[in-house]
Amino acid sequence: MNPASGPQTVLIEVIDVPSPRIVYLNGAFLPFEEARVPIMDRGFLFADGIYEVSAVLDGKLVDNAAHLARLDRSLAEIGIRNPHTLAEWEKLETELVARNGVSEGLVYMQVTRGVAERDFAFPPADTPPTVMMFTQGKTIVANPLAERGAAIVTVEDIRWKRRDIKSVALLAQVLAKQVAAAAGVAEAWMHEDGLVTEGSSSTAFIVTKERVLVTRPLSTALLPGITRAAVLRLAAEEDLRIEERPFSVAEAKDAAEAFYTSASAFVMPVSTIDGHKVGEGRPGPLTLRLRALYLDIARGG
Amino acid sequence: MNPASGPQTVLIEVIDVPSPRIVYLNGAFLPFEEARVPIMDRGFLFADGIYEVSAVLDGKLVDNAAHLARLDRSLAEIGIRNPHTLAEWEKLETELVARNGVSEGLVYMQVTRGVAERDFAFPPADTPPTVMMFTQGKTIVANPLAERGAAIVTVEDIRWKRRDIKSVALLAQVLAKQVAAAAGVAEAWMHEDGLVTEGSSSTAFIVTKERVLVTRPLSTALLPGITRAAVLRLAAEEDLRIEERPFSVAEAKDAAEAFYTSASAFVMPVSTIDGHKVGEGRPGPLTLRLRALYLDIARGG
Repeated sequence: MNPASGPQTVLIEVIDVPSPRIVYLNGAFLPFEEARVPIMDRGFLFADGIYEVSAVLDGKLVDNAAHLARLDRSLAEIGIRNPHTLAEWEKLETELVARNGVSEGLVYMQVTRGVAERDFAFPPADTPPTVMMFTQGKTIVANPLAERGAAIVTVEDIRWKRRDIKSVALLAQVLAKQVAAAAGVAEAWMHEDGLVTEGSSSTAFIVTKERVLVTRPLSTALLPGITRAAVLRLAAEEDLRIEERPFSVAEAKDAAEAFYTSASAFVMPVSTIDGHKVGEGRPGPLTLRLRALYLDIARGG
Repeated sequence: MNPASGPQTVLIEVIDVPSPRIVYLNGAFLPFEEARVPIMDRGFLFADGIYEVSAVLDGKLVDNAAHLARLDRSLAEIGIRNPHTLAEWEKLETELVARNGVSEGLVYMQVTRGVAERDFAFPPADTPPTVMMFTQGKTIVANPLAERGAAIVTVEDIRWKRRDIKSVALLAQVLAKQVAAAAGVAEAWMHEDGLVTEGSSSTAFIVTKERVLVTRPLSTALLPGITRAAVLRLAAEEDLRIEERPFSVAEAKDAAEAFYTSASAFVMPVSTIDGHKVGEGRPGPLTLRLRALYLDIARGG
């Protein structure tokens, strides 16, 4: 599909990178161009690693403790030692944000099981994990997509069974996102047995015509979204009716509102699903309310 | 578990690497120590890549055309352009084998979607794929494990739904193999709904008490094994009864013989499954016959 013929024109996000761009790799802050890993890194050979993404707003990390707790949990689930305390991580992130002058964007962190001669089983326990971090400058708050709502498509969820682990084994998500990109839209929601699991890089929510906020309960079928948790807390404070239960693609298309959440999308309204308008086909009032509330707490409100 | 207390002592395969070791990366033969990929390689960030392994015997590639055909097919399935013709691949492999003086072992080949700023969707179509190859020297024919049979364990198959694609998104296989390693054994067979899919890096076969050779039919549930196909051809030439059908873990434990196949294990007899002896608990006659026949054709017979 020719991108120019697609229904949307803001598919390609603008990523700002400073010059020189500084990244972090195994104890050193170094120029982006010099940051390379050995071919025997288990992240490269086996997807044997974990990642996290924290948003940066006004130069400050958003909900970072929760992201670092999830990083710690993901590492533990696959038996990689967390090479840093939460305080050490935060210090490294803060320094990287400062060195790159990021005011709005994200910090990406990746930890792999390290470098060892290729063999499926774990290398010796004293093999140092690989630690890599970079930043991207992005417009999150004034994202034009949030103004008019994101069109999304749906695809079958073909991922592995431990989707609660935020691993770099992301090929299924890459293929899902590419279906979206080929259709000229921003996101793909994945479904299994007819029920939505989550977006390719986000959590899926709907608001029913009875004004009930619905999202899938946590399980091994989906990632425990940090922004998801924050939005559920905000919704509870607003006395919204909340149901944590699976919902179908058909129910989503028939919903009053739909949105997705992620560290870098915050609360993103959904305008259409597979070409079907959700509600009026524009951001719904409850979605916009939750986006504003989230933005407020993200800014430290 | 202390490896010294395990039931087997040959778990750690001896991998010979010459000094200097030469690997191939993006058009260049270069010293192993210099072979590094940028942190933005999609293989490292997203497991967005494919790999293959061909055995080397007497300095020659074994069944290599079939491996290259599978590489081509895997790349096509995830939309990565094959950067080389089959003839070009074979020339590169042959040169790498010669430069490292490998007489017995394997050639590993990996192709990723290349280097691009991190974003789930595919990068521009003209992004050059990353091509990486290395060799390992290994004792395949005189493997002592083949003399007495390999103990294996079984684990739940938690992989994604496109196991016919030989991608580097191998975290589930790593975790399965680690269960085996922690038990001091060489391989783990994975099962789903009670039925064996395949080994963590091999194809699973049993021989029933009625002397029927059974292996799972090809589908998206398992990799189309190159050695599997060769063994089925040999079995047909031997007029063995063959059934391509799923079999259960219980049926495997109760079988007369069991073995697994892979490019680097060839035909490996299984002695025990989860501690239960298969048959007499040593390599079965039909298994040994198929191993000998395979070895003969692998040697160009």
